[in-house]
Amino acid sequence: MTNVVVQHIERADPAVIKGLGECGVATVHEAQGRKGLLAAYMRPIYSGAQLSASAVTISAPPGDNWMIHVAVEQVTTGDALVLAPTSPCQDGYFGELLATSLMARGCEGLIIEAGVRDVRDLTQMGFPVWSKTICAQGTVKETLGSVNVPVICAGALVNPGDIIVADDDGVCVVRREEAQSVLEKARERVAAEKEKRRRLSDGELGLDMYKMRDRLAAKGLKYV
Amino acid sequence: MTNVVVQHIERADPAVIKGLGECGVATVHEAQGRKGLLAAYMRPIYSGAQLSASAVTISAPPGDNWMIHVAVEQVTTGDALVLAPTSPCQDGYFGELLATSLMARGCEGLIIEAGVRDVRDLTQMGFPVWSKTICAQGTVKETLGSVNVPVICAGALVNPGDIIVADDDGVCVVRREEAQSVLEKARERVAAEKEKRRRLSDGELGLDMYKMRDRLAAKGLKYV
Amino acid sequence: MTNVVVQHIERADPAVIKGLGECGVATVHEAQGRKGLLAAYMRPIYSGAQLSASAVTISAPPGDNWMIHVAVEQVTTGDALVLAPTSPCQDGYFGELLATSLMARGCEGLIIEAGVRDVRDLTQMGFPVWSKTICAQGTVKETLGSVNVPVICAGALVNPGDIIVADDDGVCVVRREEAQSVLEKARERVAAEKEKRRRLSDGELGLDMYKMRDRLAAKGLKYV
Amino acid sequence: MTNVVVQHIERADPAVIKGLGECGVATVHEAQGRKGLLAAYMRPIYSGAQLSASAVTISAPPGDNWMIHVAVEQVTTGDALVLAPTSPCQDGYFGELLATSLMARGCEGLIIEAGVRDVRDLTQMGFPVWSKTICAQGTVKETLGSVNVPVICAGALVNPGDIIVADDDGVCVVRREEAQSVLEKARERVAAEKEKRRRLSDGELGLDMYKMRDRLAAKGLKYV
Amino acid sequence: MTNVVVQHIERADPAVIKGLGECGVATVHEAQGRKGLLAAYMRPIYSGAQLSASAVTISAPPGDNWMIHVAVEQVTTGDALVLAPTSPCQDGYFGELLATSLMARGCEGLIIEAGVRDVRDLTQMGFPVWSKTICAQGTVKETLGSVNVPVICAGALVNPGDIIVADDDGVCVVRREEAQSVLEKARERVAAEKEKRRRLSDGELGLDMYKMRDRLAAKGLKYV
Amino acid sequence: MTNVVVQHIERADPAVIKGLGECGVATVHEAQGRKGLLAAYMRPIYSGAQLSASAVTISAPPGDNWMIHVAVEQVTTGDALVLAPTSPCQDGYFGELLATSLMARGCEGLIIEAGVRDVRDLTQMGFPVWSKTICAQGTVKETLGSVNVPVICAGALVNPGDIIVADDDGVCVVRREEAQSVLEKARERVAAEKEKRRRLSDGELGLDMYKMRDRLAAKGLKYV
Repeated sequence: MTNVVVQHIERADPAVIKGLGECGVATVHEAQGRKGLLAAYMRPIYSGAQLSASAVTISAPPGDNWMIHVAVEQVTTGDALVLAPTSPCQDGYFGELLATSLMARGCEGLIIEAGVRDVRDLTQMGFPVWSKTICAQGTVKETLGSVNVPVICAGALVNPGDIIVADDDGVCVVRREEAQSVLEKARERVAAEKEKRRRLSDGELGLDMYKMRDRLAAKGLKYV
Repeated sequence: MTNVVVQHIERADPAVIKGLGECGVATVHEAQGRKGLLAAYMRPIYSGAQLSASAVTISAPPGDNWMIHVAVEQVTTGDALVLAPTSPCQDGYFGELLATSLMARGCEGLIIEAGVRDVRDLTQMGFPVWSKTICAQGTVKETLGSVNVPVICAGALVNPGDIIVADDDGVCVVRREEAQSVLEKARERVAAEKEKRRRLSDGELGLDMYKMRDRLAAKGLKYV
Repeated sequence: MTNVVVQHIERADPAVIKGLGECGVATVHEAQGRKGLLAAYMRPIYSGAQLSASAVTISAPPGDNWMIHVAVEQVTTGDALVLAPTSPCQDGYFGELLATSLMARGCEGLIIEAGVRDVRDLTQMGFPVWSKTICAQGTVKETLGSVNVPVICAGALVNPGDIIVADDDGVCVVRREEAQSVLEKARERVAAEKEKRRRLSDGELGLDMYKMRDRLAAKGLKYV
Repeated sequence: MTNVVVQHIERADPAVIKGLGECGVATVHEAQGRKGLLAAYMRPIYSGAQLSASAVTISAPPGDNWMIHVAVEQVTTGDALVLAPTSPCQDGYFGELLATSLMARGCEGLIIEAGVRDVRDLTQMGFPVWSKTICAQGTVKETLGSVNVPVICAGALVNPGDIIVADDDGVCVVRREEAQSVLEKARERVAAEKEKRRRLSDGELGLDMYKMRDRLAAKGLKYV
Repeated sequence: MTNVVVQHIERADPAVIKGLGECGVATVHEAQGRKGLLAAYMRPIYSGAQLSASAVTISAPPGDNWMIHVAVEQVTTGDALVLAPTSPCQDGYFGELLATSLMARGCEGLIIEAGVRDVRDLTQMGFPVWSKTICAQGTVKETLGSVNVPVICAGALVNPGDIIVADDDGVCVVRREEAQSVLEKARERVAAEKEKRRRLSDGELGLDMYKMRDRLAAKGLKYV
Repeated sequence: MTNVVVQHIERADPAVIKGLGECGVATVHEAQGRKGLLAAYMRPIYSGAQLSASAVTISAPPGDNWMIHVAVEQVTTGDALVLAPTSPCQDGYFGELLATSLMARGCEGLIIEAGVRDVRDLTQMGFPVWSKTICAQGTVKETLGSVNVPVICAGALVNPGDIIVADDDGVCVVRREEAQSVLEKARERVAAEKEKRRRLSDGELGLDMYKMRDRLAAKGLKYV
């Protein structure tokens, strides 16, 4: 197995990335046909964290964060790191010093299917992290991995340059090639939901608004 | 299996429901002989959430939230929805639009042994939810379930019209028929604890206040 | 098996205990050679909780909190309780009345590999607890355990009088005999990190600061 | 809370119980409308274990098996014990001595949402157990529970006298009042499946046998 | 989202597939650079199960096995089904009737990141299944999925036509394009291990055979 | 942290070790006052596995099995390896080649709070392993650990030279210094159980044999 660092990756239009973030995870996930959601155990380290960024990916051995140091150099403004361990691990790969380094390079946050530490500092710095666990256990720097290769993180395939959208509902990945069209569909949903929200808020029932009654009866639902 | 919506259910006295909520989950659970507690994995989506309400129950297939739309029509002021999937599922059955609709009908909150999404919006709306997980994954509307039938939710039997008490400690169900007597016992506990709290706060030991020393010695505890 | 309460234990210098707390869990854990960390499922009941204290240990049967009442008498200012059940249990061994009693004796907090309840009250009282779960289920007082004996709590050995350091990153135990030297090493780390933070914040890469490039190349990392 | 032993319970017809066992868990579960299945973590201690019996239920405190001794006296030929702890526990409530006693009384097996031990002996004795875990940790005899009251075991309501069917697929409970009709439906399924099995074995496709092609097309499935 | 059935897929050389199976999961996984392993919770329903086959993939909704019926038609001799649910689910998607149908078409087995039932029958039929759980809970046929599209199953990307190797150690996927070269490397490993096994069996130490002593000393290992 | 290999350890009398194994895990655990049991997730890779041996301990980094190779040299006839990772890991640290080497040195088996692979081969060789998981994922040889230092394995403290007893019920550790007295108590239990077994087999009730009726009545149990 060759370990590589891919130095040149394509990134999506920053305006598209920003737009996806404004729509939020649940809407973006729906807009792209319910694909790309990371496992629900990926949780933000503080409430209200929000992220939309271009992925710089890391494939790392268990308990070894060497490749994060390598990845920092590949980060530019508007990127987020996405780390997938090659086997399950909950060690704290990441803390406040690495966040300081990443913020200096314009990094927007971290998605890590493993552990993170210094969460109080990270919260105060406003550096958002979605992780599988919080754990003070440190890591070593002995074994290589790769940077900017496709990884499977928490059950979802993430390519370098894909767009990561994350908030309190979890984390979703959007293919770079599909970002523009997903954004358009997501904005249509946002617009459509506005009208629905008004009608539901006025007391109209979803049963009527969505015209569900006939289909429910046809399926055999009995009111008793 | 017939799928039904039971339209008329008995509800407890609103003053009793309110009173139980003031006592809190831990006290109510004790007062009724330590029964009715839902599994500890049922957690509020925000700290400080509190609920006491009359249950409108939903039995729903995995990954299908159609019956929530049906249940909305059965909700009246002071009710809470209680959803149990027919097999384990963590999909996000519920979000901000359904909450908007429920709030318009006076619904107090949701207990769901599955997933919920739009948690940032729900938090801002002040619509409390206790769920098994937070997950942006949506659901379909293809398969029937039932509304206002007895369900087992997170290990506890909930009948329609039972009282749900929920707070940061979890969720407890009180039988409608027992609500008045449970409230009385709960209030007795609250009153008794006030005096105990004062004495403990003054430095008296529980060993003395509860007269435990003789029984500990009789069981064989050795001080060395 | 004899159940005992050890009444006289050695405690570390309060200034050392305080100093370890200022360094935080992640730093202390590193400073003592990455040992003594409790399992990552031990989480604080509220964000920002911090603790550094001398351990009073409890070995308790599942679902039985009698020994906590016994342990209260052994607590003095600057202590924290550390409870390990003799088999896995998530019952709520501990609540607001016990916390009231402990605060009256100067207790700093609780580490419990089981459940806790009244978390809203405990949060308002500012009594920090790190627990495996939050659960309203109460316990009985029927079976003896021991106080101030060595226990294994969440995978770590804790002796009475050992120092417990806990924060948002988790819980770490420091041997009493090693506390002074661990503190010295921890403070060295804090000092060293200050300079590293400044350099990273100025945009210097860890790859350069830690002189990693040659070793990465020697291991075979390819830049493409 | 009063602790009781209900001494006289109704039992179903032994021929019906036997018949349900012959149909197996998956078929019985389908035949009664997909209800009554215990959680999938309930596993047999040996492959090939099979059980159909009348339930004698036990509600027991965590880590306390006293009520099993009480329940033994209530067992008669053709019964199985069903134990639900009042809070989650994995201790080994049950071993070879209790099994010896139960076999002497004609007991068919045990369903326990907790731990069991002496599994090698139990396997050699042919005493089937479905449990949540295998664990050598013993229990005490200090706290009362109840025998032959309704319990919720692994997420399913079990009344004394209900029929328990268990095999390699898990555990299902059938209401005593419904046992006869469930058996009839189960036998219809077995008969219907025989013909389906023959046709499928001959190479006929389910798509054709179940006439699914039109509905798939109507839903929009594309063959490419 | 469009639901499709891809009818024509490329398959690897049957001799290569067979050869990979003879090497076993652990060896194949090593030979291809430690990639392609499915999560360790994928376990065979019986000990000694072995599989090497060409993947026919299924993306299926939670609790809905309609697409398995669709996939059967796409199976030919030497194939195995690989099912990934679109959200986590443990329902029993698969049982003895579907296995009968698949065996009639020459199918070698099933990999399913969900539940399976009728395991006693499947064991007797010798139809191997690796699943996340065993569960009698049935599924519906209401919602479409897709057949022969890339899926992520238990954390690994599986393309239609990739080779699946499975045994008691778990499940590994090999890219079709790499199958020949992986087989060659795997056979080299098997050959090399034969000689190592002989030497170790004769009492030679790995420390000497792998010449580890100098490197251990250089890293600082102390013998005391 | 210094990494060491302790070359000379004390071992218990082989006859005592053998005797403990004959009593089995559940009995030994009871005989020593219910201490020393490893967590219930430690399971044998095949049914019927049995072990009683002297512990050679390994503290190993996550995903790194180098120290097993080091430990092999320290093994003598009648020893078992006990491996505890320094943070949770499920990688397959151990397989058939290492087992071949260990068998050549008279090693009795392995206890590993991590993963194992080649389980089919290990089963055929009759080399018993109790592990947390089965996983084909291999490990590296980059980072030092220690051999024959005290470790906490699956929640239990194990010193080098302690006695490990393991069977289908799990794994228990006995302090070397206490082995003789534990064996005596275990044998007393075995003898006492023989008579109890006979009486229970003859139909005598535990309620009578253990004289429980008065105490049950005194605690308030009601027969109805």
